[in-house]
Formats: sequence, structure tokens, C-alpha cells
Amino acid sequence: MTAEQFADRHIGPDPDDERRMLETVGYDSVDELMDAAIPEVIRWHGTLDLPAPASEREAIAELRALAARNTVAVSMIGLGYHGTHTPAVIRRNVLESPAWYTAYTPYQPEISQGRLEALLNFQSMVSELTALPVANASMLDEGTAAAEAMTLARRAGRSKSPVYVVDADTLPQTIAVITSRAEPLGIDVRVLDLGVDELPAEFFGLHLQYPGASGAVRDHAGLVEAAHAVGALVTVAADLLALTLLRPPGEIGVDIAAGTTQRFGVPMGFGGPHAGYLAVRAGLERMLPGRLVGVSRDADGNPAYRLALQTREQHIRREKATSNICTAQVLLAVMAGMYAVYHGPDGLRAIARRTHDMAARLAAGLRAVDGVEVVHDAFFDTVLARVPGRAEAVVADAAGRGVNLRLVDGDHVGISCDETTTAAHLRKVWDAFGVPAFDGAGGDALPDDLRRSSDFLTHPVFRSHHSETAMLRYLRRLSDFDYALDRGMIPLGSCTMKLNATTEMEAITWPEFAHLHPFAPESQTAGYRELIGQLEAWLAEVTGYDAVSVQPNAGSQGELAGLLAIRAYHRDRGEGHRDVCLIPSSAHGTNAASAVMAGMRVVVVACDADGNVDLVDLDAKIDKHRNALAAIMVTYPSTHGVYETGIAQLCAKVHDAGGQVYVDGANLNALVGFAKPGKFGADVSHLNLHKTFCIPHGGGGPGVGPVAVRAHLAPFLPGDPSGAHVDSRPAISAARYGSAGILPIPWAYLRMMGAEGLTRATGVAVLAANYVAARLRNHFPVLYAGNKGLVAHECILDLRPLTKATGVSVDDVAKRLIDYGFHAPTMSFPVAGTLMVEPTESEDLAELDRFCDAMIAIRAEIDKVGSGEWPAGDNPLANAPHTAAMVSGDEWSHPYPRSVGAYPGTVDRMAKYWPPVRRIDGAYGDRNLVCSCPSPEAFES
Amino acid sequence: MTAEQFADRHIGPDPDDERRMLETVGYDSVDELMDAAIPEVIRWHGTLDLPAPASEREAIAELRALAARNTVAVSMIGLGYHGTHTPAVIRRNVLESPAWYTAYTPYQPEISQGRLEALLNFQSMVSELTALPVANASMLDEGTAAAEAMTLARRAGRSKSPVYVVDADTLPQTIAVITSRAEPLGIDVRVLDLGVDELPAEFFGLHLQYPGASGAVRDHAGLVEAAHAVGALVTVAADLLALTLLRPPGEIGVDIAAGTTQRFGVPMGFGGPHAGYLAVRAGLERMLPGRLVGVSRDADGNPAYRLALQTREQHIRREKATSNICTAQVLLAVMAGMYAVYHGPDGLRAIARRTHDMAARLAAGLRAVDGVEVVHDAFFDTVLARVPGRAEAVVADAAGRGVNLRLVDGDHVGISCDETTTAAHLRKVWDAFGVPAFDGAGGDALPDDLRRSSDFLTHPVFRSHHSETAMLRYLRRLSDFDYALDRGMIPLGSCTMKLNATTEMEAITWPEFAHLHPFAPESQTAGYRELIGQLEAWLAEVTGYDAVSVQPNAGSQGELAGLLAIRAYHRDRGEGHRDVCLIPSSAHGTNAASAVMAGMRVVVVACDADGNVDLVDLDAKIDKHRNALAAIMVTYPSTHGVYETGIAQLCAKVHDAGGQVYVDGANLNALVGFAKPGKFGADVSHLNLHKTFCIPHGGGGPGVGPVAVRAHLAPFLPGDPSGAHVDSRPAISAARYGSAGILPIPWAYLRMMGAEGLTRATGVAVLAANYVAARLRNHFPVLYAGNKGLVAHECILDLRPLTKATGVSVDDVAKRLIDYGFHAPTMSFPVAGTLMVEPTESEDLAELDRFCDAMIAIRAEIDKVGSGEWPAGDNPLANAPHTAAMVSGDEWSHPYPRSVGAYPGTVDRMAKYWPPVRRIDGAYGDRNLVCSCPSPEAFES
Repeated sequence: MTAEQFADRHIGPDPDDERRMLETVGYDSVDELMDAAIPEVIRWHGTLDLPAPASEREAIAELRALAARNTVAVSMIGLGYHGTHTPAVIRRNVLESPAWYTAYTPYQPEISQGRLEALLNFQSMVSELTALPVANASMLDEGTAAAEAMTLARRAGRSKSPVYVVDADTLPQTIAVITSRAEPLGIDVRVLDLGVDELPAEFFGLHLQYPGASGAVRDHAGLVEAAHAVGALVTVAADLLALTLLRPPGEIGVDIAAGTTQRFGVPMGFGGPHAGYLAVRAGLERMLPGRLVGVSRDADGNPAYRLALQTREQHIRREKATSNICTAQVLLAVMAGMYAVYHGPDGLRAIARRTHDMAARLAAGLRAVDGVEVVHDAFFDTVLARVPGRAEAVVADAAGRGVNLRLVDGDHVGISCDETTTAAHLRKVWDAFGVPAFDGAGGDALPDDLRRSSDFLTHPVFRSHHSETAMLRYLRRLSDFDYALDRGMIPLGSCTMKLNATTEMEAITWPEFAHLHPFAPESQTAGYRELIGQLEAWLAEVTGYDAVSVQPNAGSQGELAGLLAIRAYHRDRGEGHRDVCLIPSSAHGTNAASAVMAGMRVVVVACDADGNVDLVDLDAKIDKHRNALAAIMVTYPSTHGVYETGIAQLCAKVHDAGGQVYVDGANLNALVGFAKPGKFGADVSHLNLHKTFCIPHGGGGPGVGPVAVRAHLAPFLPGDPSGAHVDSRPAISAARYGSAGILPIPWAYLRMMGAEGLTRATGVAVLAANYVAARLRNHFPVLYAGNKGLVAHECILDLRPLTKATGVSVDDVAKRLIDYGFHAPTMSFPVAGTLMVEPTESEDLAELDRFCDAMIAIRAEIDKVGSGEWPAGDNPLANAPHTAAMVSGDEWSHPYPRSVGAYPGTVDRMAKYWPPVRRIDGAYGDRNLVCSCPSPEAFES
Repeated sequence: MTAEQFADRHIGPDPDDERRMLETVGYDSVDELMDAAIPEVIRWHGTLDLPAPASEREAIAELRALAARNTVAVSMIGLGYHGTHTPAVIRRNVLESPAWYTAYTPYQPEISQGRLEALLNFQSMVSELTALPVANASMLDEGTAAAEAMTLARRAGRSKSPVYVVDADTLPQTIAVITSRAEPLGIDVRVLDLGVDELPAEFFGLHLQYPGASGAVRDHAGLVEAAHAVGALVTVAADLLALTLLRPPGEIGVDIAAGTTQRFGVPMGFGGPHAGYLAVRAGLERMLPGRLVGVSRDADGNPAYRLALQTREQHIRREKATSNICTAQVLLAVMAGMYAVYHGPDGLRAIARRTHDMAARLAAGLRAVDGVEVVHDAFFDTVLARVPGRAEAVVADAAGRGVNLRLVDGDHVGISCDETTTAAHLRKVWDAFGVPAFDGAGGDALPDDLRRSSDFLTHPVFRSHHSETAMLRYLRRLSDFDYALDRGMIPLGSCTMKLNATTEMEAITWPEFAHLHPFAPESQTAGYRELIGQLEAWLAEVTGYDAVSVQPNAGSQGELAGLLAIRAYHRDRGEGHRDVCLIPSSAHGTNAASAVMAGMRVVVVACDADGNVDLVDLDAKIDKHRNALAAIMVTYPSTHGVYETGIAQLCAKVHDAGGQVYVDGANLNALVGFAKPGKFGADVSHLNLHKTFCIPHGGGGPGVGPVAVRAHLAPFLPGDPSGAHVDSRPAISAARYGSAGILPIPWAYLRMMGAEGLTRATGVAVLAANYVAARLRNHFPVLYAGNKGLVAHECILDLRPLTKATGVSVDDVAKRLIDYGFHAPTMSFPVAGTLMVEPTESEDLAELDRFCDAMIAIRAEIDKVGSGEWPAGDNPLANAPHTAAMVSGDEWSHPYPRSVGAYPGTVDRMAKYWPPVRRIDGAYGDRNLVCSCPSPEAFES
């Protein structure tokens, strides 16, 4: 009487498929294959100690029980997290739509025009609201955005001072993140009350909050002028909703604006995820960290979007990188942008006005009673009330009425209004303060000289989709442009584009998980904390570590957290001089960038001809830096998709020299159930919950990158950034549990797979990669392999000889795959001129074969170019991808028939996916940088 | 401080749009337009007495409060309603996906291939499980399917006997529906215990339940033989899940199978909606009522699906129709079919086996204790326990433990297991019966000679989509074939394809609304009943009637309910001889069919040249049938889309002659807030909640057709079919509140629109229709109009002169609209050779203009055919719709460029909707009837 197993739904190949795949690879069973593939020295032979797998309904029932232990109170805490109404049409058709949430980062822009347009809307929105010309495609949260602004100011400014001034009326979590980031970089952060304190004589940057954390709205123009006078740059962390009514930072010469767009329709989620933002004045755009969407043109000269200025990015700049940011919060940025599209400028203004009116009325009521003082006359949404000695009592009374207020100190209470505030909420607050019946008006608390007079959101996109019907169609139109997992395989090496099961996704939109403020009283968050505790414990079991923190809200942040733990550990032992981080040449660029951010010096270790870490060079580098050796960062299996046999030796050598071993968890999907980094020699790893543990990529974020450590590093894990507790540990992100709102996803995955399911998934993932390698080896050389010629969970197809012989580039093949109905594998990483294929365990044999057949057919096409049958410059590869408009054009002058362009191989003519644009000229867009919505006329042909 | 109004999201045109539309139509305000359009004699000048409109969040909060007043118990009542696990991937990507739920009935098959394939899967599933060759595309529920089977048996059989035998072990609600349907048709229903009673000497049909309502599994072969011997046809109401293990009805010569597919993944929903089914043996397929999907071919000879044998349907056969069924339960049939696709034959067998094992274990436990007798040895999922005198106590005890059992009588309790039953549930049941600890095995209670040996679900579609990834992609693939409201306007006259707002849709998938059994104790359904009570009261207020019943689960059922109420009223007054129903010649065919089913004689009243009811002919017909006059059925505004001025006179004339006035509510969208049928002379109406009140069409169902009456007819509204109460009122559907599960949708619409919003919606709908008429009048004659040349909420474009002059047919124009990116308006109804356009209030001006521009461009194309510039047989109209495969073909021999075929007018080249097939040859498919999935080879080109 066993119920159905979720693992059978998650894993694509059925037993029949598996048998046929094993036959091709030449093994009798998955176990036998894994025994051959994984070096015995790291192999772990136990059974994961996890609860027996739950069925989908059991998991949902358990999640409902956990949800029931959270309390959804009315949140008036503020501090950068506000109640908001997610328009239902956006929730259902973005956040709950696989077409949006299963998409990948738009590296293949021709098949990502929908989310690129949505991100351009986001950028335009941020840019116009802040009145700064260039905004990026989102940051991880306000705290990290502010920290990036700090380092940007340091790079861009004239001042050589190490001092960074932060106004004391800044969000406490922002101060915590800035401080944590500053320390390893030698930046001297001074938190000053700029209403009282003088600015120091020299400083390179100044951070202001607008409105302040206290709610106060101040004129910052004088401070901006003063900062500029000493060559410092100014960042304003501005509330975008307030900017619909208040003079925007760009209009007083501010250099950088940073902040969050959470209150634009993204639920608080107990801290995240939501989209932070970063915008800069002209002249700084090429120094901007993070992703930036820009307008370029395609092969027909039509406007087309793609990621701009990619050479700024960490994966290119490696140890020269100035930021390790390598993702954005795309799904949430899409939501926030669509919120602005749906409401339009008038709608946003009305929401801001209503929010302000609520706050003003609230203040008027508070003023009406003795013993309550409203501290600031000028505010937008947040009222600071002074109740000497009574603050705790007032906050407790309000909590009893179901309303959370901010306890500032024993004498002060903060009350923040938002879009969801109602008259009934005000009444409860007044009751808590002892205000009798009040029905006076509120007036207006916006200073006259700080009112916004400039227009914003002037592009038609913000004025055309205000009915639900129009909005629904706009979302459908954009999602139809894109290729996501709901259309077919996305065999991206190193990215693990596996199933994001619906059941895993369900709980994240339940109110009990969606609507909690990260600083809500602990009594209201028991369910969340239990879920997080279980998740951390299960992740520790899976990885063999002793402690896990889910705070890092991206893999890059996990890296930084792990390296900071290593740094703190050495310092704690009096070995603070250890600052060399060894990194193999094959490593992902982020590793080096993170090491730099953690204050380390990067020393590169060579790889041998087989792609493995060169142990001889390792010895040499260790010898050279023995006393300064802090750590080595390696990825396992390697970024070449190989189970390196030398890993245990490597760990031992580094440990012997006093260093710590960091294993990048990017490729953990090849280990789960078979090997535990925490047991085979590593001290710390970050995991990618958006890879191995099923959080969807969301078109380029959210990501979650927990850091996992052995016991000796546990004391140095991230701390609580809220300021609620004295905490010497670093703040990696703005919220204690990072992107808590999406942790039900990996929780559900682990809960439903259980030990056996997880282990099977690993085996099938490795089998699938070896199957693809076996089928394609005769058509494209497979670049690296380990034991017995086996790859791990991905394989690298080497196109370089073919490119040399025929001129057909890896780009041509990637674009041609679109014509065949596929997303390309990872291009030119880790080796230029190659494609790295990771099929994952979720693709069934039919889809694997469809892909292999396409690759083999493309190989035959390459040969036709090589043989001269097709000219080098005009062939189906060079012209790929083919749009419907192209192949149905009235003229056709190419030396191959239209059908070869449009329907190669066995492409389904009924269900063909058509890219909306032809190949995009990225360089053109970088030369002619446009990062906000182009006019509709640009699209007229 | 007012929050945003939902009406502003529901209504497409904004104030600017409205102003421009009014200018074109020639009025200063919507009020002025409505004053001119609506005859003063029917005009109602009040304000609807409805609660002030709730915002979307307030409506959701109120729905959550109502939901909280329902109790989700473990349901083991059975009786055709079973717990089931809806696979999350199907719920999210079908039931919660606008691409599926906003689609229309597949009358335009070229743009409906996705849902047609899904329905073909459903038909194949039913056909193979029942072992009968042809199944239709679903029925409204098991009760109505059984009633349709009865009338089919009467038409098809040799016997002239009026007797229909129903086995007593049939679901009580089925007996109620059969009896209600039989009475007006003069059928003599005999409910007999066929285990004991003899069959009568003569009867035309026999109805059996398999397994029986009591759970008993009996061999029916002998009864089938006996029935055939006297020329009777046999219907078996079979449980499809049981048929995976039990010998199917088709293998013992059964003529008809009927039943429900609810337990295939469709939540119980307090009674509905779900898909009933009907399958027949060879030879009966052309007499089958309901919709039938068949395979045909397109202009390229490729297989393509469309509705088959449409000439059987009521809208064609009118008063000769044998059924008034004019819809199916498409959305639910798609879900049930996909449930079979996802589980496959092995999965279904495993679910059935597990369900049976649970029941067998349950029985073994019950047998283990004194005082409990298990009545039947052979059963599938339902155990009948005999506990003399204790039944009520046991049921009450179980209810206290959260488990609902079936109270059969004072001595018997029924317990039904299903997919959701767990060991813990069994334990609770045993506790209620006083069974001590039990861990024995259950054995097997399936009779050996009734085991199924034949294979089923052999088509690859049932064997290919078992991983969630594969299922997700299959659903996406199919939905991409189709054109629904999420792509663009569906201007279907008489169908009111308005916005189905997300907030309206949300509550239907909440457990508290989804998982209630229709016979659950009243104490568990307080929230539902309050919601239904409010909805009925609001509908009464909107229509001006005194009482409303939501039981009819389609408009056709509402018609029948209304006519039966009239019939009962006359009989109650001793005027049972009144049996003539007057129906204007312009009426929808369903009206006549319903009248026949209600035992009435149809007399047609002519229309005048303006399309209005000819009052002279009406006088003549009334005179002729004065003593026999039962009713008149009219649609208002008329099916011609005109506010007829004679309506009040018409009502008076009929009343004067002793008749009742039935106003078909199909066009209520043109009246709400401006006129109330119950106040301007009508006695009864049915409403279409899937038109005016926003229940989505779901691709051709569910529909909900409440019946609304004045006080004198209230006693004759539908009753409770459950058998729980003595009830002389008719059973129109199998559940007391019909499709209760989707009533939160119209509730939310009414709650959020309020009086002002509803009234505005009507005005804008009428404005939009008149705008379209004004823009198109010079290009296509607008056929009928009322006051001052105004139409109501739709307008008829007359193509007949153009067709005569050029040969371009209404079909050509409809298919050409696909190339322009539109769903065609209603074709050839109510006037052959015309198109009826209903834009609704939800389309904004941009979309209205896009449509008008397309129609004007098409008119210019027609002129090119007329002028001979394009040959009659080979032009963009004759060849429409153009597929991508066609316009990108290697050869092109048409006398117009490809671009004219593919991208006419201003069609967006990036976002072009491509139909998956070319024009479909319907007649070919009717001649070569194939109604189950064709082999994959059929698609090879």
C-alpha cells in the first residue's frame, strides 16, 4: 500500500530509459557506474540520515502545519520591509508561472527577449524614479546594494581617504552589511548623526537614507555639496515609493542611489527575496556592478535586448573584479517592474499619497493625546513617536492587537504605514498609545521644498497595461518570447537546470510564508524557524558539515561568507597574516572576486593537460606562500565536470600548510549521497540551492547560497544584521535568514526525495551526462574525463578543432540549437571554444536523444560548411537563429532552402519555438549604450 | 484615502478611451447613450442594492473567512464523489492557467488543437476503460449523463415500451435526475432491486450501477442478455477507476456507459464541476448527445482535430433535438484526461489496487469485531457494514474523529475508500465501529471471474508523460496551440468573453472550497451555504426576481429547470394541459430543445424584417393556442443584439393568455443595472454565470446556469437530489448546489464590482459594441439595430452581399482573422452568412481598434477578390489560416506574397500567433469518424 514516490516524478528516465542509457554507456547498473566514476578515496558509503520521503500531499500537509505556526500580523515595523499588495494577475502569471520561474539567466538573449524587456522596464522604473540615467537589472537586497555603492564610490571618487561616512538614520541592517563588507577591504566606516555631527575633513563616500530609518525626510542637498567638495561620492538609499512624491536624488546631484523595490508588489517573505536596486549618474555606468540590460540590434537591424557591458562582470574580470555579484533578482525585479507597469505613474502616486495620508492621520491622532510626541514634522510613511519610558509597553500592547510596531528604544516607537494600511489598523495603533476616538484629518507632512515636480514613467509601457486583461496579455506576450524549462531541456553545464516541481513552489505564496517581516517577534515565526532549522540540518547531513547558515542570498554571497569565516578563524588563532587564497586556473571567476572582497590575495594554481589541478604546481605555490596561506578554493567535481582523483591529496597538502579548504558547491549535484565534502577534506562550502536543491533560476535570480562549515568555523558564520542582538559576526545579507521566503522549496525537495531519492538523482544525473558524452563523442571530442573515461554530471564538447577547420564558432552552434528547439549548453566556460552540457536527472531519454540527435545533425551541417557546400558566411549556422519573419520573407537569397533554416532535423512543425529576433549584435549595444525602454517608434520597420 | 477599485481593472477602456469611443458613436456620455439605447418601458432607474464594492484584498479576506467556516473532513461517503489527489503540475498548469481556463469552446478548431487533443485523450481514456468504441467529450455529471443515456436508449432501441428499469443499487442522485427527466417525457421509471425483483416483461432500457452504490460488485452479464432479449438497451454507470481492475461493460455487450471522472484528479467541490462521461457501442455514435471530438485533416492533409458530427447538436436540430446539451465540462475533462496521461495505465492500476487494498483491510478489520457484519463479499472500494440499530451512532462517532461516513439507514453504514485514504483513516473508522487494534491483511474482494484481463490506455500519450518535466512540457505544448483570452480579444457574439479576473479564480482551489463532499453534514458547510445564499440574493437583486437556484450546471439545464417550474406551476393550478411553448424564429436552438425535454410543444413565432419578434404573428399564434399556451421563451436583448421595444407588450400579451414569460438570460450583460427582467414582465430566466458573471469558459465548460423566478414559481425550483430529504421538486443536476466549487467566482465578481461597477460595465459593453458598429458600418452592413440605430452589447455584420458578389464566405473571413491574430466572432448565428461581434466591457480601445482595423483590412482583401486581382480559389482569404510551415515552405505558388499571407495589416512579427494546422476539412472527419487518439505515425509527413 505504498503511495507514489515523488522521486519518480522528479527523475526523468524511467527504468526502461535507464536500462537503455546504461547499455550505451556500458554499465550494468547505476551503482556500478558510480563505483567506477567516483574515486574511492572520497566515496561515502552510508545512507543519508534524513526522514523517510514524504509524498507530495504529505509534504504539503507538513508545510501547512509549519505555516500554521507562523502568525501573520499587521506589520508596521518598516525599516525597508513593507506590506504590499501583489496584484493577483502578476502573482499568478509571473511568480506562479513556470514560463517565468524556470527560465535561466538571459545569456542567450535571442530566446530571452521577454525577461530582458521586463528587466528593461525595471531599469527604466528605477532610473526615472531616482532621476539617475542608468540603473542595473537589480541587486540582491538594499544592504548589499549599499555595500556595492560604497565600493563603487571608492573606485570612482577622487578622494584617497579610507573613510566612508554613513548617516546614523540609515537602516540598521544596511549599516551592518556595509560594516561587514568594509572591514576586509580596509575601509573605515564612520556612522555619524549628520543632523548633529560634523562631516570629517576627508572621506571618499557618504551614505544617506531618504527618508531616514526614523521616517524623517531631510533635505540632503547641503550634504551632497559638502561631500562633492572633498571629492567624495554620495549614495542615497531612497524609497522608490516616496520618490513619486519627493524630490528624487538625481535632482540634487547624488552620484548613486541604492535601495529595495520590495514594496512594489513583492511579499516580505521574512526577509527576501526581493530586488534591490542600484542607479548611477552619467559617467559611472561602466563601473556599475551587477547585470545591466541594454538595447542593441539584431541581424536585421531591429531593436533587441541583451545584457550590456558584460566585460565589467566578475566572471570575466576574476581577481581584478571589484564585485563578486554574478546574479540578479530577476523574478522579483520582473514583479516589481510589472507592478509599476500595472499601476502606472498615476497609480503609484495614488498609492504613495494614500500611504502618506495614513501616516499623517496617524501622527495627528498621536499628537492629540498627552504623553505622546511625534518627533519629526516631515515624514513620508513612518512616524516616530516619543513615549518616555513607555515604548516597550506600547509595542507589546499593539502586538496584542495584532499589529507589529518598531521598538526603537525605551522611549521611542516607530510606526510605518504602507499600501495595506487601513483605518482599522490606525485605530489599533491609537488604542495601543491610548489615543481616544479620533477622526481628525492628517494634513500633509511632506516639506514643500522637497516635493517632486518632475514627471516619471513617461514611456508608453507604463501607461498601456492598466486593465487586468491588458496586463495578462502583456505578460503572456513576453513569456512567449522566452525559452524556459517548460519548453524543453536547458543543458547548461554548471547550472543544473533540473525540475522545479510545482509542489516545491506552492508554499512560497501562502500568506503565512509570504507576509512575515524579518524583524517580526520570534513568537510569530516559530514555523519558519523550525523549517529553517530542519533545512540547515538536512543540508549539513547531505554535505557532511557541522553547521549551515542560509543567510547568503546568492552563491557569490555564500563564497564571501565562507571566506570571511576562514579569515576570522585565522585571525582568531592569531594568524591574521594568512591572506593568500589559492585558486585553480579553471575556477569560476566569482571565486577570485570573492577572495578579493574577503581581503585575500589570489594566487592561481595551474591545471594539467587533463584539466585537473596540477599537484606539482600546487606544491610549488604552497611552498612559496606557506606562511601566508589562508585557503584554497576548488570546485568539486571540477569545473571541467570531472571527479578529480587528487582531491584528497590536495586537501591534505593545504591543511598541512595551515590553510583551509573551500570546496565550491556548484557541482554538488554530482555528489549527493555518494560523497560529502565535509568528510573528504573540505572545511567549508557554499551550496547553490538554485542548482542542486531546486530553487528555480527565475530568469536570473533569486539564488540562495547557504554556507556550510565544519565545527571549527561555525562560530564565524553570518550573524544577525537587524541590530536586535549584539553580534560580532558578519552580516552577509540584510536579513538574518536571507531569502527565507523561498526556503520552503529546497525543504520540500529534500523532504520528498529522502535519502534514496537524492542518491538516485545523483546517479541518474551522472548517467545522463555519460550517456550524452557517449552518444556525442564520435561527433565532438569530449574534452576531459576522469576514471575510466567517465565524466561526472556534465561534459565538455570541444569545438575548437572544428572551428579552426571550418570557421563555425561555438556561438554559431549555440544559436543553431535554437532552431532545433533548444537552449544552448554553457558556452566557452570553463574552456573557451567549448560547450559544456549538463543534462541533469530530470530529463528523460526522449529529450536526451532529441538533444543528441540535434547535435549530431549540427555536426553534419558543420561538415557542409567545411566541405564548401555552404559558404562560410551564409549558411544555416551563421544565420542562426532563424526567425519566422526571416524564413517567411518574400525574398530568400540564401544557398539553402528555407525549410533547412526553419525546420532542421526532426523539429516539430506544429510546436516550433520561434525566437522573436535574429542574432543580436552585442558590441553595437555596448558602443551605443541604452539601458531604458526604447520608444515604440524604434520598433517600426 | 480610497483604495483602488476592481472595476477599473475589469473594465478595459479608461476615461480617455471612453471619451474617444463616445465621440465616434456620437454621444456625450455613457448615460446618454444608454438612455437612447434602452427602451424606457423596461428601463429601471434605481441603484442595485448590493454591498459597497470590496477591493480585491477585501474580497479575498471575506472569502477566507467564509472558507474558514467550512470544515474539510476525511470523506468516506462515496456515492460518486471521492477524495482525489490533483497532481500539482496539472492544477497549476491547467486549472490555474489562463491559457486553458480562458479559452472558448473549440468551434474554431484551427486555433483549438491543444484542447481538442486533450479532449481526445479524455475520450480515448473513457473509451478504453469502458471498452466501448466511442465516448464523447464529457457530460455535465453522472446524473445527467445517466438521464441522457435513458433518452438515447429510448431513441435507439427496438422496444416501444415506456418503461425504464433502474436498479435500486444506483446512486440516489442519479435516480433523482433520471426520474425528473423521465416524467415530462412520459417515461415510466421503475426502480427495482434486481438482486431480488424480476425484470418486467417489456421495457426499453435498463440502468445498472457498477460497482453498486452499496459497494457490491455484481456480474451483470445475465441482465444484459435479458434486456437485449426484449429489445432494450443497457446502460451501466461504471466507476472508471474500478474498471482498471474489473471487467469493463463493453466486454459483456453493454450498449452505453455513463458516469463521472471526478475521482481522476478533480476536487469534489461540494458537488461540482467535474466531467461526466458517456460512451456507446458501435452503431450508436451518431445518436450520442453532447460534444464529440474527432480526427480529420487540414488543407495540407495533416491530421487535425475538430468537433465531429455537429449536425447532431441541439443548436442545429432545435425542436427536433433529443437533448439540450450544448456544452461539456472541458476544463475538468482536460484535467481528468491529463490525470490518466500522467499516471498511465500502470499508475492508475496501482491507485485502484491501493484503494482496493485499503477497502479490503477495512473490511477485514470490521469483520474482526462482534456486532459488525460486512454485507458484501465482493466490492472494490466501498464496504457496507451492518450494525443493527447503531448506524447513526457510528456515523456520529466517526464524524467526531473527522471522518464522514455514509448513513445508509438505521442499520447500515457505507464506507468508501479512495486514493487519499491512509492507514490512519482506517484506524479512525475502526475506532468508530469499536474495532480494537487490528493489523491483519485484507486479502482481495474482487471476484475472480470479473477481473479485467484486457489492456487499456495503450496509446503512447498515456505512456510518455510520467515525469513532471515531461508533463509540464506537454501541457505547455498543447496550450501554445490554442488561442485564448490571454492572447487577445475573442469577440464572440452571445458568449460574453470578458475578463476572468485572477482574484475571482483564486478561492476555487483552496482546500476549504475544493475538498467538500456534496453530502457532507451541514455543520461542515456553513461557509459554502452562506456564500451561495449571498450569491443567490445578489443575483435576485440584479435580475429583479424573487428566488434563485444555482443548481443547474449549464445554461441548458437552467432552461430546463425554468420550463419545468412553469410546467409544475400550471399543473399545480389545474392547468396541466398548457403545453405550448412559443419560441421566436431567431432563438438559440437550445430553447426549443429544452422545451421539448420539458414536455412542451414548440410553436415558432416569426420575426419581422428588423429582426424583432413579429407581434402580429405573435397575436396569431397566441390566438391559435390560447388555451394550451404554457409559455413564451425570448432572449432579451434579442439574439440579434437589439433592445426590442416590443418586449413589454409581448409579456403582457402572453400573460393575458395565461402563459408564462421565460426570458433567456444569455444577453444579461446588456441589462445589468439598467433593466431587470423580473421587473419588466418576465416570470423566469436562467442566467449564464459563465457569460455575464465571469466564470471562465474553460475551453467549453464548466458553465453554470442558475434559474431565477418570480415568487409564484419559487416552490417549483430544483430540489435536493441527494435523497437526504423527501423532495418532490425536480433534480436538475446530481448535486443540490450544482457546480458549487466555482461559485466563489461570480461571488467575487459581484462583491468587487458593486452596483456602480456592474452598471458601468454594462454601459461600457454597450458602448464598445456601438463603437465597433460605428467603425465597421461603412465596410460591412450592420444587420439589425434598435432605437436610434443603436445596437445593444453586440452587433451583426452582414457578409451575405459580399459573399454573393465575391464568393468569399463568412468562414473565409473567420479563418483570415486568425492570420490577423484574432478569434473569429460568432459565425452564422443567429443569421447564416453573418458574423456577430460582442466586444464586452473588458477590451480596451487599443484592442477594439486592432480588431476594427483588421476587419477593414479584410474588407479591402475581399474587394481584391471581387475585382479579380486575386483569383477566387487562391487568395489569402481562401487559404486562411496560414501556418508557419506554409509561409516558410520551400515552394510558394500563390498569387500573393508570403508576407501578405503571414503578416497582414499591422500584425506584430515578433509576437505572431501561429495556428498549428491549416484549414480543417470537417466533412472528411465526419465521413471517416475517428474519436480516439490517432497513432503517432499518422502525423508523419
